[in-house]
Amino acid sequence: MVQYGVGPIGASIAQLMRQKCAIEICGAIDSDPAKVGRDLGDVVGAGDAPWGIPISDDEPRVLQQAPHVVIHSTSSSLPRVMDQLLACVRAGSCVVSTCEELAYPFRTNPALAEKLDAEAKAHGVAVVGTGVNPGFVMDKLAVTLAAESQRVEQVRISRVVNASNRRLPLQRKIGAGMTPDDFAASAANGTIRHVGLPESVAMIAHYLNLPVEEISEMIEPVIARERVSSDFLTVETGQVAGVHQIARGLSGGRDLVYLELQMYVGAKNPYDRIELQGHPAVSLMIPSGSHGDIATASVVVNSVPAILQAQPGLRTSCDLPIGFLSPTLETLPRWRTR
Amino acid sequence: MVQYGVGPIGASIAQLMRQKCAIEICGAIDSDPAKVGRDLGDVVGAGDAPWGIPISDDEPRVLQQAPHVVIHSTSSSLPRVMDQLLACVRAGSCVVSTCEELAYPFRTNPALAEKLDAEAKAHGVAVVGTGVNPGFVMDKLAVTLAAESQRVEQVRISRVVNASNRRLPLQRKIGAGMTPDDFAASAANGTIRHVGLPESVAMIAHYLNLPVEEISEMIEPVIARERVSSDFLTVETGQVAGVHQIARGLSGGRDLVYLELQMYVGAKNPYDRIELQGHPAVSLMIPSGSHGDIATASVVVNSVPAILQAQPGLRTSCDLPIGFLSPTLETLPRWRTR
Repeated sequence: MVQYGVGPIGASIAQLMRQKCAIEICGAIDSDPAKVGRDLGDVVGAGDAPWGIPISDDEPRVLQQAPHVVIHSTSSSLPRVMDQLLACVRAGSCVVSTCEELAYPFRTNPALAEKLDAEAKAHGVAVVGTGVNPGFVMDKLAVTLAAESQRVEQVRISRVVNASNRRLPLQRKIGAGMTPDDFAASAANGTIRHVGLPESVAMIAHYLNLPVEEISEMIEPVIARERVSSDFLTVETGQVAGVHQIARGLSGGRDLVYLELQMYVGAKNPYDRIELQGHPAVSLMIPSGSHGDIATASVVVNSVPAILQAQPGLRTSCDLPIGFLSPTLETLPRWRTR
Repeated sequence: MVQYGVGPIGASIAQLMRQKCAIEICGAIDSDPAKVGRDLGDVVGAGDAPWGIPISDDEPRVLQQAPHVVIHSTSSSLPRVMDQLLACVRAGSCVVSTCEELAYPFRTNPALAEKLDAEAKAHGVAVVGTGVNPGFVMDKLAVTLAAESQRVEQVRISRVVNASNRRLPLQRKIGAGMTPDDFAASAANGTIRHVGLPESVAMIAHYLNLPVEEISEMIEPVIARERVSSDFLTVETGQVAGVHQIARGLSGGRDLVYLELQMYVGAKNPYDRIELQGHPAVSLMIPSGSHGDIATASVVVNSVPAILQAQPGLRTSCDLPIGFLSPTLETLPRWRTR
């Protein structure tokens, strides 16, 4: 496999992938001049570095190896990564990407989705966008739970993440330490926002066949009611501790899908909760919640066996029977015939 | 589709299937003389009966239609239903069966599993054994949750079912109202036992690649500490209220998989709980638990789209990206090419 993008998530994926006997890392791509030419193991801070895998900014040369799979982790924006994804597909590689807008782009970016699907089919490879959210806890897991249901009328999912023990860039991304006014300005220009909730709404609506006509999205600051410190920063009372986002899938003004995400420094009781209204009503709770970074690396790496045996084309996490890729597994089951 | 077996679960499946636009019921098989010749809708007590579908005991004739899928629900024992499954496969039909021992027979019934897999492949059809348990809440859902994990070391699952609101045959099957001595005798001869826990242990061990060397199973009565009544029967203090079963997957005397099922009349706080030890540890809770009969019918019917597009052969619930088959869906997505 090739690791495309060696930011914080890409580094965490590479470290996890390194532990899996069934898959060998054969290359890494990143455009950051501070990383190009250096060893991947060194850059990700691996205990067993160097790995003998140089990070390169020469995408065509790295992809020339035609890796079975590329793990792609460069940006949340599908338009911005479209050319990267196409290059992977044209090299004959399956792709698992953390690009949030790729998780279910058929509604939010239909033209790009169609093009990517066609190219993937033409080259006999499968592509999926996934991660913990979107890709798992606010969509795939709900659709899986719906297997218990005879009728699903409404889906409500709530996720509360304590950002205190997350990395600094994440804390900055959610506006921790900002004034409410600065937050409002940043939210308005789109620099503060967890990407992917509309994609999760659209995915749930599709797989549960809920007639969602309109998807709305809202973002507000969570204001600190007391002073709270993380390892990296301090949020004073009255400052912004993080984000509170709500995405709704509506039909005739009624919520069919309601997703609520709170991600802030000092969240005391993080959890993930899924509630399906219908027959029977069924709910599911993950006490203390799914860890954003760790779980994203896990979901991505654990998706590799499934993408390799998926039908060619643009797939979603709901199409794939995701499981667990064991470190000790030596051969991938039913590896794609090429 | 053809409904093979019109007992309580088969009837519940047929009623649910009747609501799905995408699939038409084209036949029903049962050997019970009290049902043969009668209309399927009448026998299952449907409000819109008769359906014009006679129940027949002539398996070859019904299967001659080569239905896309047979839903099979006659017995928990794989050896007992093997010929029925082979007949379906040889007719060119995919099969979704509630036979508990079919959920993961590769370890508990390897010779039968191998034969069924070979015949299914020879006829280009896929077969799966599933239901709520085994098939979902004590295996598939745990393997799905493991997608969040980088390392899984141990799995503990606990399921508590309140049998008070279940049908009388189920209450009898778990020994409700028996004396402890009668229970012990019935447990010893195998007439009282929820079937499928060893299959779930084996399935989890396989998909999480846990080196389980030995699978053990234990059954004990739950004794009523106070008088408790259901709609059908009364359990006096000191009598048996139901079963307490434990199945363990062991390596060197250590539990790698520990499944605990309590199913009894008067259970006050039913729930399903999955705990994965590893990195990160993650747990999941279904408050009030998954309803046995309703969820089994749901899981079976919701598995139909996935089995129709699965690779030919004997599959498990973990191989299939199960979702939800909407009543309003008019065409099944990516219907198997035949």
